[in-house]
Amino acid sequence: MHCAMKVGIVGLGLIGGSMAIDLKRKGFAQKVVGVEADPVNAAAAKQIGLVDEIVTLDECVAESDVVVLAVPVGAAVKLLSKVLDAYQAAQAQPSQAGPDQARAEDKVVIDVCSTKEMLADSVKYHPCRRQYVATHPMAGTEYSGPWAAMPGLFDGHACIICDAQESSSKAVRKIEALYDALNMRAIYMNSSNHDVHTAYVSHISHVTSFALALTVLDKEKDEKHIFDLASGGFSSTVRLAKSNPDMWVPILTQNRDNVLHVMDTYIEKMNAFRQAIAEGDEEAIRGLIDEANRIRRIIR
Amino acid sequence: MHCAMKVGIVGLGLIGGSMAIDLKRKGFAQKVVGVEADPVNAAAAKQIGLVDEIVTLDECVAESDVVVLAVPVGAAVKLLSKVLDAYQAAQAQPSQAGPDQARAEDKVVIDVCSTKEMLADSVKYHPCRRQYVATHPMAGTEYSGPWAAMPGLFDGHACIICDAQESSSKAVRKIEALYDALNMRAIYMNSSNHDVHTAYVSHISHVTSFALALTVLDKEKDEKHIFDLASGGFSSTVRLAKSNPDMWVPILTQNRDNVLHVMDTYIEKMNAFRQAIAEGDEEAIRGLIDEANRIRRIIR
Repeated sequence: MHCAMKVGIVGLGLIGGSMAIDLKRKGFAQKVVGVEADPVNAAAAKQIGLVDEIVTLDECVAESDVVVLAVPVGAAVKLLSKVLDAYQAAQAQPSQAGPDQARAEDKVVIDVCSTKEMLADSVKYHPCRRQYVATHPMAGTEYSGPWAAMPGLFDGHACIICDAQESSSKAVRKIEALYDALNMRAIYMNSSNHDVHTAYVSHISHVTSFALALTVLDKEKDEKHIFDLASGGFSSTVRLAKSNPDMWVPILTQNRDNVLHVMDTYIEKMNAFRQAIAEGDEEAIRGLIDEANRIRRIIR
Repeated sequence: MHCAMKVGIVGLGLIGGSMAIDLKRKGFAQKVVGVEADPVNAAAAKQIGLVDEIVTLDECVAESDVVVLAVPVGAAVKLLSKVLDAYQAAQAQPSQAGPDQARAEDKVVIDVCSTKEMLADSVKYHPCRRQYVATHPMAGTEYSGPWAAMPGLFDGHACIICDAQESSSKAVRKIEALYDALNMRAIYMNSSNHDVHTAYVSHISHVTSFALALTVLDKEKDEKHIFDLASGGFSSTVRLAKSNPDMWVPILTQNRDNVLHVMDTYIEKMNAFRQAIAEGDEEAIRGLIDEANRIRRIIR
């Protein structure tokens, strides 16, 4: 089956572009077509050679065994219903699939977004819900666009598969094989837990990084000082502040309650630190740092 | 002069050990002796071969043309006076220096600490003040101890030289040559400005990273989830939370006022973010992220 797979990728940015590269390179996809709304990005993706062809969304859905929605989560919510609607329409017609193409009811669409509950809710009662697999490959960089795509981006990272019981087992197996080709390890949870855990481990670190950048840009008016004095420590802490608002505005609004909850805990911890420093309480500062150091055991 | 230089390093951790490696390797030092209070670290430094010899502080000061105080800033304040006292005592005696050794009045002591004002104040009126050069090489990792020492740690980074006018120009030139051997570029400012700018650019990123680790450890009780869900973004943002309290407690207490000032701005920015998210105000969130993105132009 793999050697005949056609993959369509909607959104040829960092994630979509990197998938296009590796799914072809690892032999999972025989052909990769791409859909890209931004004409500059589309031209760049073609020039870089990320995909075999740039097509329209309709062509992509008609032609592909697997469609990957690699767009910001706001756009993904709209596109997901469209793709499932197209699957439904195709199944109502006599089969027009070629001999090497999956039948309409065997086609699968996945998303790769960082928030899941709103997507899951949006197609909960769609007749073709079982052809959708919700996935979140936990890999990325702070860069975006087709230029940011790179081979090996996913290598060795985890991929969360959400609500697998809502998808057909055939669809899930196909997508497990796709992520296996990318050398990712699958983790399973429901959408709601996904959104809680990613708020705790991923979304908060973006917010703290944005706030750090805002602080340093506010306090340190002399940009040359920032450049000169930024050692590796500051650079790595502020790195995520380069992240694209098109991606992060919908994540932070869709996952609002979980993000607010973890931000409140974060602000509490900052205030505890502030008080210990203000009081010159060395034992309290040491206690907080000792406690924070526990992260050493978990993150290498 | 360089080929005959003897360097004594007090504190064979990440910074002291890495200096020992490169000052020898680059030919700046003919001989490097080390002082290390912790017996395990001393034995390790010897075994790794960081220094030619482990000696006492008195031997180190007597024997070395340049003494580097590479200890946490609390200990450095105490040791700096001791070293200058020893210089003073030696100058009161007839010269016992060997033919290849600097005269007592040509010896130089430097520190490499992240806060400067308290050190500067502590020796302001010392008769041998001009033999001290205050320096801050802006390089490091989140690891500590002699095992963390590595060649090339300083390569290409900035080194701040503080209050150069308080040191003899001969001493400053010698230390400029030392940092030049480490391939660092010198930046000059006074101690007070140093402490303001490092609070803004360096110290705050450690505090935010400690707070992030505390938050995630508090909210995400399942350590396996932290490990599984930590993509590169979280890992790099939380990296500094592994930093050693022995180093950071004195920095945060000695630079208290500057650190509190920047923390207050940081907490304001977090609250602005929190409000925008709570209100679901997408334009406000986008505005904050756009503003934070300006850091792209400064930090590659």
